[in-house]
Amino acid sequence: MMPITQLPAAREKYLKKLKQKKFRREYGYFICEGVNLFESALQSADVSIGDIVIDEHRANDFDLAGIKGLKQMKDAQIYRCTERIMSRISDDVTPPGLLFTCKSVIQSDTYLKKIRNPYLIYLDRISDPGNLGTIIRTALWFGLPVILLSPESADPLNSKTVRSTAGAIFSMKIITEISSNVLAEFAHKEKYRIASTLPRGGVDAASWSPPSKCIICLGSEAKGLDPDLIQQAEMQVSVSGSGAVDSLNLAVAAGIIFSKLYEFKQLKR
Amino acid sequence: MMPITQLPAAREKYLKKLKQKKFRREYGYFICEGVNLFESALQSADVSIGDIVIDEHRANDFDLAGIKGLKQMKDAQIYRCTERIMSRISDDVTPPGLLFTCKSVIQSDTYLKKIRNPYLIYLDRISDPGNLGTIIRTALWFGLPVILLSPESADPLNSKTVRSTAGAIFSMKIITEISSNVLAEFAHKEKYRIASTLPRGGVDAASWSPPSKCIICLGSEAKGLDPDLIQQAEMQVSVSGSGAVDSLNLAVAAGIIFSKLYEFKQLKR
Repeated sequence: MMPITQLPAAREKYLKKLKQKKFRREYGYFICEGVNLFESALQSADVSIGDIVIDEHRANDFDLAGIKGLKQMKDAQIYRCTERIMSRISDDVTPPGLLFTCKSVIQSDTYLKKIRNPYLIYLDRISDPGNLGTIIRTALWFGLPVILLSPESADPLNSKTVRSTAGAIFSMKIITEISSNVLAEFAHKEKYRIASTLPRGGVDAASWSPPSKCIICLGSEAKGLDPDLIQQAEMQVSVSGSGAVDSLNLAVAAGIIFSKLYEFKQLKR
Repeated sequence: MMPITQLPAAREKYLKKLKQKKFRREYGYFICEGVNLFESALQSADVSIGDIVIDEHRANDFDLAGIKGLKQMKDAQIYRCTERIMSRISDDVTPPGLLFTCKSVIQSDTYLKKIRNPYLIYLDRISDPGNLGTIIRTALWFGLPVILLSPESADPLNSKTVRSTAGAIFSMKIITEISSNVLAEFAHKEKYRIASTLPRGGVDAASWSPPSKCIICLGSEAKGLDPDLIQQAEMQVSVSGSGAVDSLNLAVAAGIIFSKLYEFKQLKR
């Protein structure tokens, strides 16, 4: 058994601060909860776990023996705490009893230079953390591991986003704060074509033939894509439907377009 | 201006009860919130609005003149209330200030006999209200207006579900409490073939040719489809992916499969 100490008050305070984006950026760590995310983290080569906090009444639920030697656990500290303290540091209505921190998985913008993937995703001011997380999860499912985020997006390290990624967050390459100007420059330099997605009026995703290098742009739930970006785009893509309802959910629309890219990539093989 | 009376205490009590499924069933009404849902309700021929409650501080935000004569408003009663009372009857963290009730839109199971649609959706124990609502919205987008729900499903009239449908709830034909046995009998009698969906291992949705009459079954987020139903199914469908993440979000997977059905229907025309 690994030595488990009581969570010190100063550490509780630190964990509570990580609920806010500004402290996640300052300290370079974010909070994850639950055994499923924990297992995903341990399977990802690039993850570094900081603190692990276990609800003392549920300590027996979690078997931490055998993971001590893992690379991801090199800097890990294990603590126990009361149910009451757990409910204060947790962001979950019903805390799963296992909470841990990970070193930020956001790439710096120098990562842009290393990108070699044919298809990239650009998300413009997506505001719902659940939508953002589901889009990240779906992108990884379809083999699209690079996501660029505009300023004013939901934080990919927000606990709701992290939960919705179902572990995909640990394997994705995410770069934040990419303005539409930086995107356009990058696309021009690296010969990516920009495809905007619109609720209606574009080429139907079902019959779209994506170019060999392409950045797919998805816009905010409420405001859609930045008009500048629509203008810079060389093609518009939409998901056709019966029109009996106003629009598709953004993550569903993203999934349908990503599935097309995946299908197209498979056909080309 | 329509006459607006203060919400009586007894009516407040009634509205609070509608937060519970059992009272929604008993009274045959459910709660909706916000101007978007209100506009969707007024556009649906089959909707009957009961109570309309407006936060008195925001009464000027909502223009109810001109809708008095609509068929949907025949039995409507309009009330105002304080912000405090609104926060008690609302299910929203930030109440939009307009709340209304609608007569239940769930069909009785005698509706089964009237179904003529080629493709039907069967949802087996979907537990997340948001997922259920998003699936309803997506189904309507792709022209699939009939959904059958198993026992132990989230309630389609739950306020979170209703919000996630983005108004599609008013146009869908939903039948609840359909067991897998009843489904199998119905499919046999009406010559529908049953297609189960699985996270992996089935025919890829991208290359699937659905039969002319088909019931697409989607299973619970946590437990998947009832094994009995998988056995009764004549075909299995999956959404192929890179496998780098455990599974797709259920509503995203549903959207990709529904988009295939829509595409297939268009091609046949």
